[in-house]
Amino acid sequence: MNRNVSITPPVDAQQNPAVVTDMREMNGAEGLVRTLVANGVDVCFANPGTSEMHFVAALDKVPEMRCVLGLFEGVVTGAADGYGRMTGKPAATLLHLGPGLANGLANLHNARRAQSPILNIVGDHATYHREFDSPLTSDIEMTARPFSHWVRTSPEAGGIAEDAVEAIAAARSAPGHISTLILPADTAWTMGGQVIAGRPQAETPLVSEEAMADTAARLGRGTKTGLLVAGRALQADALELAGRIAAATGAAVMSSNLVARQERGAGRFSPEIIPYAVDAAVRFLADFRQIIVVGAPGAPVAFFAYPGLPSRLAPRDCEIATLATPGQDIMDALQRLAERVGATAGGHLEPLDIPSPATGALTAASIGQSLGAFMPEGAIVVDEAVSSGAPLFPATRTSRPHDWMKNMGGSIGFGLPAAAGAAIACPDRKVICLEADGSAMYTQQALWTYAREELDILVVIFNNRKYEILRGELAKVQAGVPGINATNMLEIGRPDINWTLLARGQGVEAVRVEDMKAFNHQYSAAIRRKGPFLIEVMI
Amino acid sequence: MNRNVSITPPVDAQQNPAVVTDMREMNGAEGLVRTLVANGVDVCFANPGTSEMHFVAALDKVPEMRCVLGLFEGVVTGAADGYGRMTGKPAATLLHLGPGLANGLANLHNARRAQSPILNIVGDHATYHREFDSPLTSDIEMTARPFSHWVRTSPEAGGIAEDAVEAIAAARSAPGHISTLILPADTAWTMGGQVIAGRPQAETPLVSEEAMADTAARLGRGTKTGLLVAGRALQADALELAGRIAAATGAAVMSSNLVARQERGAGRFSPEIIPYAVDAAVRFLADFRQIIVVGAPGAPVAFFAYPGLPSRLAPRDCEIATLATPGQDIMDALQRLAERVGATAGGHLEPLDIPSPATGALTAASIGQSLGAFMPEGAIVVDEAVSSGAPLFPATRTSRPHDWMKNMGGSIGFGLPAAAGAAIACPDRKVICLEADGSAMYTQQALWTYAREELDILVVIFNNRKYEILRGELAKVQAGVPGINATNMLEIGRPDINWTLLARGQGVEAVRVEDMKAFNHQYSAAIRRKGPFLIEVMI
Repeated sequence: MNRNVSITPPVDAQQNPAVVTDMREMNGAEGLVRTLVANGVDVCFANPGTSEMHFVAALDKVPEMRCVLGLFEGVVTGAADGYGRMTGKPAATLLHLGPGLANGLANLHNARRAQSPILNIVGDHATYHREFDSPLTSDIEMTARPFSHWVRTSPEAGGIAEDAVEAIAAARSAPGHISTLILPADTAWTMGGQVIAGRPQAETPLVSEEAMADTAARLGRGTKTGLLVAGRALQADALELAGRIAAATGAAVMSSNLVARQERGAGRFSPEIIPYAVDAAVRFLADFRQIIVVGAPGAPVAFFAYPGLPSRLAPRDCEIATLATPGQDIMDALQRLAERVGATAGGHLEPLDIPSPATGALTAASIGQSLGAFMPEGAIVVDEAVSSGAPLFPATRTSRPHDWMKNMGGSIGFGLPAAAGAAIACPDRKVICLEADGSAMYTQQALWTYAREELDILVVIFNNRKYEILRGELAKVQAGVPGINATNMLEIGRPDINWTLLARGQGVEAVRVEDMKAFNHQYSAAIRRKGPFLIEVMI
Repeated sequence: MNRNVSITPPVDAQQNPAVVTDMREMNGAEGLVRTLVANGVDVCFANPGTSEMHFVAALDKVPEMRCVLGLFEGVVTGAADGYGRMTGKPAATLLHLGPGLANGLANLHNARRAQSPILNIVGDHATYHREFDSPLTSDIEMTARPFSHWVRTSPEAGGIAEDAVEAIAAARSAPGHISTLILPADTAWTMGGQVIAGRPQAETPLVSEEAMADTAARLGRGTKTGLLVAGRALQADALELAGRIAAATGAAVMSSNLVARQERGAGRFSPEIIPYAVDAAVRFLADFRQIIVVGAPGAPVAFFAYPGLPSRLAPRDCEIATLATPGQDIMDALQRLAERVGATAGGHLEPLDIPSPATGALTAASIGQSLGAFMPEGAIVVDEAVSSGAPLFPATRTSRPHDWMKNMGGSIGFGLPAAAGAAIACPDRKVICLEADGSAMYTQQALWTYAREELDILVVIFNNRKYEILRGELAKVQAGVPGINATNMLEIGRPDINWTLLARGQGVEAVRVEDMKAFNHQYSAAIRRKGPFLIEVMI
């Protein structure tokens, strides 16, 4: 099976320590791992099986690749999402055939909506084995396609490095994409692997002068104007520019209630939030006559449809214009726009205004206040608190500067895995994961990875023993008052889940708290220590 | 949105209590639920979200539908697999949009390979909302297709009942298929729902006289012949016929090491097992000159490809012939064949031969012996013990009669959910779930459903703190001796998972045992009581 292939010329070994500069032979799997590392993909979240064993074996030869085991594939893909959001570059995932990929799809959906870069490596049967339709055979490309921007099967050891380089380039193209590279077992084990390094990354396209002029003209019209920021435009430098433009032109800077990663807190500019509830969002947008989109995929839309309520949130006579798409250079666009409209004065940056810790009974609002009180500088907050989450974001607006990420795709089970990825991306920053009990159940195997990797993550579980969000949704879709059977589908008590036991069972220290005094005590102590810890809040 | 639709004529309300006989209007969701019940689909495993709220609300009006909540979609689809295997009829699943379906795909893969009937109901956004591409939007049909035999989106309330009847017919067509019916929110909430009942089920096609004559001729050749039985041919009545045919003709009855549902133990005929390991399977089949397939999809094949080993297990000169495909009437075929070859004498039926409980250290072999000792009559064994599983099946061959099911698709995480479905299908039978720790982690949320529904399931977790199967596979694919990095991917200790805590955290009583004395004590006591219980075996 050995093919005569041209070996890539040696590159500077110091620049790319993973590149082998001798001409010895290696198999496809080793060539793949070395090519990944040589192109900056040096973290792999993995849940391997038999067909990935040569990839696993290659890890011993390429210690530059950090391979992190997850005990369920949703942990793997969700971690890659969190990692991608914090670093702007793809991690690899390693998944076992079609069903292994399938288990990871929900968090790939969330990552796709967050515009996170991810490179999936999906093992497949040996190419010659597929026709026998053995039990684990399924159509992997078809499975990957609805959740990937780029999909390819690499049928030969000599071609896998080239395919990997293209997959990485696709994943890294702005703003961030999902690539899925399918690796048949014989591609992995056959000799003839290569290493490819040093391909330049594609330039991110600039916004045209015409779009810039159109935006500037719109901002000069004197009508009520919104600047809808998302994606890269939610980082501190971009927000500061947006705030300046707003101050100079009278436009309002606004953002979706879902943010992939927002830099916020003291010293940062805060956009206004378009509410989640459709009626509130419609009221919020009612007076706007134009919305200029900066880094968002389009105009604000309702998360779900409800009988009698619109899907489009802005008024019919509100024009939607685009300054920059997610795939364009957003910082460049904001800089040029600020210059063009003479936005030299600063917008409003948040002061440092730290509240006292809250006292009394446990409520989401009180917890929000204490989060604000204890927020460590540089913390990364992963927020999947769902129905308990509404007060948490506003309560931390003026706390010490931090990052905040939410579930962008609405498939719950994002938070615990994403926190793992963020912690691996930023080992010197505290990660705080705010999780609803219902959401946490989907991917709670992430806790085991926290313990295995000793990740510095503090989890707050809001244990309300209900799919509380669905009680509200049932009313909003006008489905009436739930009876016994419907209520059974909305409550997740009977039995009550004990998160303290679930965490300890996976090696993570945990405590349960029933009032704010205990919460403040446990939370502030956990903030000061390193390593994984879980606080179960009985609200 | 109300359409003027013709209402199905009333049917006998006593035969179909769920069918409304007045002509009052109902919405699409209520029409769907009533149509399901009227056509024998009266169990629904559910993990609903906003888009399924009208289906949930309809449950209050149709108490004949038993709706069982799972806290992760892999639990839902795996339970439907177990239910389908035991009843031969589909349960419904209720899943939330594309990502909810995606989370259920791995166990749909396993169910598809088991030829289990399942009807998935997947909620979608309102039809008019899709174009807005809101966060939870994805291509549901594309996602369903690789794992479904039948897929349709039902765009109108007036048509959902007809689509449901077709979906059920597709799922029920022999041997059992996966149907996925996509229910947009406005189809569910719009008035104009109907109820359709009483459609006759399609006849299962009979085996032709030509195939029968060919098989009889082959059996008379005097060459070494195997009768490969699978699917419906593994039930006791069919096995008894196969055993008689073997006794009359000298053929050997054999089965894959994977069985969707085999009736076995005392009084049943036992086929020989083709080993999992390729080299052993090749030796086992080396002398056969023809294999006649009865209910299997085809010739025996290797589960995985390995360097230097064949994918096809039978010798090149061994002919493969088919008596009955999985979609044909297998009992009829075996009866006619038995008559044709004069197979009136009985084959070997297993005696009742109950071993003593094993003593000493905990090993898989010892546990197998004690399983045989304590097997309750009519038990349903769900076996996903993987690397610990090999001794369990042979050790129970002559115990009290029981059913045994294995993971047919190889995507681990099948066992705990399937046990839930089997327990709901057969509430008067003890369900024994034999689970490897690595496999159990994927879908351990099933334990919560055990507690919620008070299911009579006894779980034995084989806690070896490794993906032990992968250590063997790494060697078999000739990937060398694992170093530190590779070993990290194969061991799931550090931290050790505590299954006793994981079970208790979800409301299931649990104990840990470290020797056979404790195992026998706990296991025999748990066999005698009703309700969920988990024994963690430290091997």
